[in-house]
Amino acid sequence: MSILNSSNRAKRVAFQGEHGAYSEEAVIEHFGETVEPVPCESFDNVFEKVQEGNCDYGMIPIENSLAGSIHRNYDLLLQFPLSVVGEQYLRISHCLIGMPGTSLERIKKVISHPQALAQCERFLASLKGVDIEPVYDTAGGVKMVKNMGNEAIAAIASHRAAQIYEMAILAKEIEDNPANFTRFQVIARESVSPGNDAKTSIVFSLNNRPGELYRAMSVFALRNIDLTKIESRPLIGKPWEYFFYIDFVGSIEDPITQRALSNLQEFSTFMRILGSYPRHQPRVQRKEAE
Amino acid sequence: MSILNSSNRAKRVAFQGEHGAYSEEAVIEHFGETVEPVPCESFDNVFEKVQEGNCDYGMIPIENSLAGSIHRNYDLLLQFPLSVVGEQYLRISHCLIGMPGTSLERIKKVISHPQALAQCERFLASLKGVDIEPVYDTAGGVKMVKNMGNEAIAAIASHRAAQIYEMAILAKEIEDNPANFTRFQVIARESVSPGNDAKTSIVFSLNNRPGELYRAMSVFALRNIDLTKIESRPLIGKPWEYFFYIDFVGSIEDPITQRALSNLQEFSTFMRILGSYPRHQPRVQRKEAE
Repeated sequence: MSILNSSNRAKRVAFQGEHGAYSEEAVIEHFGETVEPVPCESFDNVFEKVQEGNCDYGMIPIENSLAGSIHRNYDLLLQFPLSVVGEQYLRISHCLIGMPGTSLERIKKVISHPQALAQCERFLASLKGVDIEPVYDTAGGVKMVKNMGNEAIAAIASHRAAQIYEMAILAKEIEDNPANFTRFQVIARESVSPGNDAKTSIVFSLNNRPGELYRAMSVFALRNIDLTKIESRPLIGKPWEYFFYIDFVGSIEDPITQRALSNLQEFSTFMRILGSYPRHQPRVQRKEAE
Repeated sequence: MSILNSSNRAKRVAFQGEHGAYSEEAVIEHFGETVEPVPCESFDNVFEKVQEGNCDYGMIPIENSLAGSIHRNYDLLLQFPLSVVGEQYLRISHCLIGMPGTSLERIKKVISHPQALAQCERFLASLKGVDIEPVYDTAGGVKMVKNMGNEAIAAIASHRAAQIYEMAILAKEIEDNPANFTRFQVIARESVSPGNDAKTSIVFSLNNRPGELYRAMSVFALRNIDLTKIESRPLIGKPWEYFFYIDFVGSIEDPITQRALSNLQEFSTFMRILGSYPRHQPRVQRKEAE
């Protein structure tokens, strides 16, 4: 059904997790309902499936507004010769999900991904005498509860996970902090033309000398280029040296961006453009701007 | 034995993990053999034990040269009103450890912390038909093997863990990459006088305007202050705004450092000095300098 024909088939988009994962929600928000989301066991598998041509795109979480960066994906962006071709923000709101017919009072155990459990600490503390157990995945937890058929166990996952597995929502918006957003990046084999309202992601390394990072940042600051994110990751084999990942507002097709990057190349020891892509305004910012 | 009297007792130093953990090795390297290392379940417990006065110091891993920063400890440094009073570098070298009398050929399963397993991937691939199972802790894995008494199971942990649990080393230096170092910080209730060869750690936040981080870095660069590490963590409740953690070479007692920090305070929205402490030269750097 999803593959219509070779030229007009549904786009296949790899994501990490089971059906019903937040990453799958980001896939549908970004590509629309006609997309074919492809579940993968690990982030590595997402990159592999895109590289080998099994999937057209991959949707990878890169940063959460409460938990911080997903460093594994930064490392994989460097390891694979793929391009960042888009970004997607998603509001993360957790539900407590149990067997149809059960009720909040009957729950004796709650399972979920450790990060989701940590984000619902206050709600969980309000449930008296309930055991907490970490599992590998949010949606995977819902699937486990369904398979066990145990009315005393509930999972924390998305509204969509409850729908997909035809399970009951016992409580919703149970997260301690509602300012819970994840930024995803879309990866593909080929780069795209980013248009005018664009962001660009790069990675580079520098000589291990005082002031070099300041110099690198000056190539952007002196051209009024707005850096939205800086992240450092270890340079394997060279203790206490780093790869720096920078996201900034601007298109790679803009001459100002091009001059900034050629300036950076003059003194960086390595530089790669990970991608230049249409900017996605997160809802939280759109709301403030209204 | 360890508590001699109230004024001359052994220093109690909290660390995360079981006896034989790499963190405990860092404790002994830093304070000497007369110290009393106090095992803790979590990093949170380490901070708590120091704050409540149960321990004199805490030893926390802050960064590994292969895996990157330990972000939980950055967050805890901000949450607790403690001071960084020292640093310690440790070379991490893994051993395969089994029951006394067993041999490498008889091993059918290897357990360890996921990070240690990942660091020994090539060695593990060379063992044919062996199951890999993640456990919570490296030294804890050795303890588990001992308690099970199973000669077909081995754990990956430190040389010291094998000695402590009186177990056999089946293979040593099994890590894929020998450039494997962890930097630890020592925390205490009171700050110290750092001496002349010092480092200082600070955390600050900035207005969410283009160029602000560049401006923050300029207060150091224009005074030739060498930044050794920059790390960003999410500012909870303000999506896509950050706390920046910076380590730099210099003592808080040096007027140049004081001028840089008062300059930073002019435009930062928050700033805290986490500590100024004697610098520890990592062995890898000492070796190069010889």
